[in-house]
Amino acid sequence: MRLDEIQECAGGVTAAKGFVAGGLYCGIRKVKKDIALVHSTTPAIAAGVFTLNKVVAAPLVVDKLQLQKSNVCSAIVINSGNANACTGEQGLKDAWTMVDTTARALHLPQEQVLISSTGVIGQYLPMEKINKGIRELSSKLTTDGNKDAAEAIMTTDLFTKECAVRFSVGSSTIMVGGMAKGSGMIAPNMATMLAFVTTDAVIAPTALQAALNFANNQSFNRITVDGDMSTNDMVLVLANGSAKNAEIRENTSAFQQFLSALQYVLIKLAKMIVRDGEGATKFVEILVQGARTEEEAAQAARAVANSNLVKTALHGADANWGRILAAVGYSGIEFNPAQVSISFNDLLVFKPNYEIVLDEEKAKAALSQEHVTVRIDLHQGSAQACIWTCDLSKEYVSINASYRS
Amino acid sequence: MRLDEIQECAGGVTAAKGFVAGGLYCGIRKVKKDIALVHSTTPAIAAGVFTLNKVVAAPLVVDKLQLQKSNVCSAIVINSGNANACTGEQGLKDAWTMVDTTARALHLPQEQVLISSTGVIGQYLPMEKINKGIRELSSKLTTDGNKDAAEAIMTTDLFTKECAVRFSVGSSTIMVGGMAKGSGMIAPNMATMLAFVTTDAVIAPTALQAALNFANNQSFNRITVDGDMSTNDMVLVLANGSAKNAEIRENTSAFQQFLSALQYVLIKLAKMIVRDGEGATKFVEILVQGARTEEEAAQAARAVANSNLVKTALHGADANWGRILAAVGYSGIEFNPAQVSISFNDLLVFKPNYEIVLDEEKAKAALSQEHVTVRIDLHQGSAQACIWTCDLSKEYVSINASYRS
Repeated sequence: MRLDEIQECAGGVTAAKGFVAGGLYCGIRKVKKDIALVHSTTPAIAAGVFTLNKVVAAPLVVDKLQLQKSNVCSAIVINSGNANACTGEQGLKDAWTMVDTTARALHLPQEQVLISSTGVIGQYLPMEKINKGIRELSSKLTTDGNKDAAEAIMTTDLFTKECAVRFSVGSSTIMVGGMAKGSGMIAPNMATMLAFVTTDAVIAPTALQAALNFANNQSFNRITVDGDMSTNDMVLVLANGSAKNAEIRENTSAFQQFLSALQYVLIKLAKMIVRDGEGATKFVEILVQGARTEEEAAQAARAVANSNLVKTALHGADANWGRILAAVGYSGIEFNPAQVSISFNDLLVFKPNYEIVLDEEKAKAALSQEHVTVRIDLHQGSAQACIWTCDLSKEYVSINASYRS
Repeated sequence: MRLDEIQECAGGVTAAKGFVAGGLYCGIRKVKKDIALVHSTTPAIAAGVFTLNKVVAAPLVVDKLQLQKSNVCSAIVINSGNANACTGEQGLKDAWTMVDTTARALHLPQEQVLISSTGVIGQYLPMEKINKGIRELSSKLTTDGNKDAAEAIMTTDLFTKECAVRFSVGSSTIMVGGMAKGSGMIAPNMATMLAFVTTDAVIAPTALQAALNFANNQSFNRITVDGDMSTNDMVLVLANGSAKNAEIRENTSAFQQFLSALQYVLIKLAKMIVRDGEGATKFVEILVQGARTEEEAAQAARAVANSNLVKTALHGADANWGRILAAVGYSGIEFNPAQVSISFNDLLVFKPNYEIVLDEEKAKAALSQEHVTVRIDLHQGSAQACIWTCDLSKEYVSINASYRS
C-alpha cells in the first residue's frame, strides 16, 4: 500500500464521475437543511456496514433487506432531525415510503434505493414534508451538490465532513469521495454514525464489501466520543464503474490501492467526527504500544478513551496520568503496571518501575494543545493500536441535557 | 431474612461495643481532616474485598499480605488526600511504615494493622506528617470519634457517610456500623471505593467473609457514578466478638440475620455514595425487570447507568427514553426491543410494540424529582436487578477537570 499514490482532492460524494447530489430544508428540523440525496446516474453496486446495537432503526431494517435482494443501488436518501428509530410498524411503513417516493421521483426500480435517518429517537417521521422534500430535491441534483448534501445530514455537527481522493489503476483515474456526520453517540465496535462514500471504480461486489469491512475497522471503529452506540449508524459505499478501469478483485495490487484510498477517506472522516465531538475542545489520540496483540492494544486504548475521568482531566489540561494507568488497569487486558510508560505528545511523564518524571509546567503546555497524543507503552510485546477521541467538557453536558428541546 | 428485625440506630464505626475511632488533620491535604483510625480494643477478626483493577495501590498489596498472614486485626488506619498508588517500591515501603507506626502507637502486633489510602495517584506519601498524625491520633480515640473518622476519609465527598443497625440473636444484641467515602471513580464489578464496617458479633471467619462477599455484590457492586474503577477500593469488616453471642456460622438463621444487617448497612452507605456522586443533582435507580437472569438484568441496567447520554438527559429532565433503549441495545444481552416497556417513576412512557405514550409534561415532572426510578421491563423472564447511579452535570466536569490542583 503506497499512500503517496493517493492524492487528496476537493469535493465529497460527487467527486467521482457519474454522481450527483443535493440537500435542502423540508421542515423536519427548525431551520437547517434536513434532507439529502445522493444519486448515481448509472446503477452502482453497494456495500454497507451497520450498527451492532440490538435496537435497530427502521431504515437499517429496510436497507439490509434491500441489499439482500440486490446489491445494485442508484440512490441514497437521508434525512436528519428524526432517526425513525423505535417507531415500530409505522416506522417501517414510513421507511418503505421514503424508498418508494425516491424511486418514483428518480424513475428507479424500488430495490435500487437505500435510505438513512438520523436525529431524535421515537418520533414518527413527518412523511408529508419528507415526500414533498424528496420530490423537490430530486429535480435539483447536481455534480456540485455535495456540500448541500453534507450540510443536510448534520445534526449537532458544527461543520460539514467531506473528503475525496484520486488514484490511478493502469490508465484509469479512480475517485473515492465521501461525507459523514457525527457527533454524539459515537462509540467503537461498530459502524459508527453515518457515512456515505461514492466511487467510480469498477470493482467486484465482494471486493467492495471486503474493503469496506477492513477500512471501517481501521477508522470508524477506532473513534469514540461518549461510548454510546447508536441505533442508526451505517456506512454505505456505492461504486458505479464510470472510471471504466479493469475490474478490481481481491488480492491484487489494484485492490490494495483501492483499500488505501477508501481507508484514507474513512479515517479522515472519522477524525473529523472526533474533532467535532459534542463539546470537544481537543482532538486526542490514545496510542497503546508494546501490547501483546493489536486487539489488546485497542482494548486498552478504548478503556482510556472512554474514561470520563481521563476525558475531564484532558479537558482541564491536568497531567493526571494516574487515571490513564487506572483505566488500562480495568480494561481487562493482562499487563504488568510496573512496566508501563506514559507520555503526552513527546513528553515522557511516567517511566517503568513507577518512576514519575512529570514536569508539571511542560505537561500542562503539552496538554493545552488542540491535538494531544497520549502514548502508553506496555512493554509487553510489539503490537499497537490507536483510538481517537476528544475531551469531555461542560458543553457536552449542556448539549445533551436538552437535546430534544 | 426479616428486615423488620433490623433496627437502624445512630453512629458508625464505633456503634459496636469495643470500638474506638478518631480523625484529625495531619497536613496531607490543604485544610480538612486527612487521617483516621478505627481501633478494636480486643483483637477482631477481619474480612475484606478489594478492587479488581490490575493496577493495585500499595495499601491493598499490604492488606492482602496481612490478611494472608492472619485474619486477626485490631486497627485500621486510613489517610485521604494521597492514594499511595503507582508509587512503586517507595510506596510499599511507606505503606509498611504506616502499619509499623500504627502498631507501635497502639501497642499492637504488626500483623494486626490494616491500612488504606485515598486521593491523588502517583505521589509519595508525606511520611513525616503521617507518622506524626498517627501518633497524635492514637491517644485521642474515643467511642464517639466515629464522626471525625468519617470526615477524615472524605476526598471530594460533600457529606460524611455513616450507618449503624442493631439486631438480636438469642439474648445478645449485635451492632453493625460503618462508614464510607465516594465520590468519583465509582463503578460496578468490584469493591468500589472505601468502606469500613465494625461489628461486635461473634462470627466464624469464613462466615464473615462469605457475608461480606454477598452483601458487597448487592450494594457497592450495584452503584456507578462514572464507570471508572479505582486502584484503591476496598471494603473491610472487623468483628470483635464483644456481643458475646453464640458464634454465628454459615447456613443458620443467625447468619441470615447478620447478613441482612450487613447488607442493610452496605446498601445504605452505597446509596449515600451515589447521592454524593461528583456533581450529582439526582439519585437514579435503574431497575431492569423481566430479564431472563439476574445477571442479564444487572448487565443491561449497568449499560444504561453508565451511558453519558442517558445521564445528561436525566440531568436535563429530558424524557429521552430512546437513549435508554439504545443503551440496553448495546449492553450485550439478548432481548426483543419490541417487547420492552419503560417508565419514569410510575409514569409509563414506552409500551411494547414501540407504543409511545409519553406525556411530556408529566415526564418532565417525574424526572425533575430528586429521586428518579427508571423501570425497564424486558418481558423476557422474571429476573430483575437494580443499579443505583446519578446524573451527569457540568459540575462533574468542573470537579474532574482540575482535581489535582
